[in-house]
Amino acid sequence: MRITVLGTGMVGQAVAGRFSELGHEVVMGTRDVAATTARTEPDGMGNPPVSVWLAEHPSVRLASYPEAAQDADLLVNATTGAGSLAALAALDPQARSGRVLLDIANPLDFSAGFPPTLSVKDTDSLAEQIQRAHPELRVVKALNTMTAALMVHPELVGGGDHTAFVSGDDDAAKQAVTAVLAELGHRDVIDLGDLSTARGTEMLLPLWVRIMAALGTPMFQLKVVRAAT
Amino acid sequence: MRITVLGTGMVGQAVAGRFSELGHEVVMGTRDVAATTARTEPDGMGNPPVSVWLAEHPSVRLASYPEAAQDADLLVNATTGAGSLAALAALDPQARSGRVLLDIANPLDFSAGFPPTLSVKDTDSLAEQIQRAHPELRVVKALNTMTAALMVHPELVGGGDHTAFVSGDDDAAKQAVTAVLAELGHRDVIDLGDLSTARGTEMLLPLWVRIMAALGTPMFQLKVVRAAT
Repeated sequence: MRITVLGTGMVGQAVAGRFSELGHEVVMGTRDVAATTARTEPDGMGNPPVSVWLAEHPSVRLASYPEAAQDADLLVNATTGAGSLAALAALDPQARSGRVLLDIANPLDFSAGFPPTLSVKDTDSLAEQIQRAHPELRVVKALNTMTAALMVHPELVGGGDHTAFVSGDDDAAKQAVTAVLAELGHRDVIDLGDLSTARGTEMLLPLWVRIMAALGTPMFQLKVVRAAT
Repeated sequence: MRITVLGTGMVGQAVAGRFSELGHEVVMGTRDVAATTARTEPDGMGNPPVSVWLAEHPSVRLASYPEAAQDADLLVNATTGAGSLAALAALDPQARSGRVLLDIANPLDFSAGFPPTLSVKDTDSLAEQIQRAHPELRVVKALNTMTAALMVHPELVGGGDHTAFVSGDDDAAKQAVTAVLAELGHRDVIDLGDLSTARGTEMLLPLWVRIMAALGTPMFQLKVVRAAT
């Protein structure tokens, strides 16, 4: 598959790197290629500058958002929540038309420090905002409930025995994303229903960040434990 | 212990019944004893009327909120989120003074139907509202992340291999509640930190109700799967 990953941060690097390892043709999109490649310092989260990461991942190409998104089989939104709508608006309309968007972003607002609040919640979600802005996209929310390393290597905790979620209005798009999750190693994927159910997974983040703070690590995942059937 | 359970609904019945079985002296508090006992129909959730439940649990006494809360070693808030502040305000101040309140309620707003929204969230929580209204209480948020049956019988899914949370400003009170959770069978309890972390567990509810809808049952629980240590 040709996969376009929008965003060059921790999530973008994790998914772009893993999809490339798995044999996909991966292009990473950024707002301003020159500015992105000019950075020489780690970002605020301690991730290496993109230029260093790209040198270590020569099969991944960096391009501007509109160029990166040409002819993609799958679009992945790995931008920050605050940057998601602008990133998607930057694409050529034809590059969005009918495309499946795996939306990983969370609408986190760090303006008051840690823990972040949510800029949209309860009666709306970032996923729905994106879908309303671009009805021609087929938005599927997934992977936004875990740290980047576990998105692409779920086996790193509990041998992968935990749960991922998908939300979306288009069943075929959800099936396509569920197949991608399976390729990444996610064995238990719950289809929560239509895209409004992304309100639920996005609203997990306030609990997620507090569990991370209590455990002192983001390397945990939630498993939905059911009764034996 | 003498345990006062405020609220006579599904949660109140579950915890009052189980604490009584475990040998505690349990009094259930309600706003209007005559009105509560006069009901002969199941409630909106299909729970039996309180009079039927009390006849089956003769060791549990029903009393008005202020009478029920006299000399309690532990107060349990099992009222609805919308009724919590009024229930606690109805107690004699001396009955609240220094008492540990296990707060199970969630600030669910069903006014627009299912799924509910949250009446307070993100920058505040019901637990904090209660604590601010009654600084003399030692509020501990817990058990609000699972269905009533699993609060008191965690072994019913996954053999009890899942996770509970506590949030509170008073460490001794959190330890007391953690001991109560252990008595109920909860083996993995994460202390999330101060009472503001209840924002996290209360904000799980929008995801919880959607998992329930997707699975068709409330009989599931979340486990926080960590890396092997």
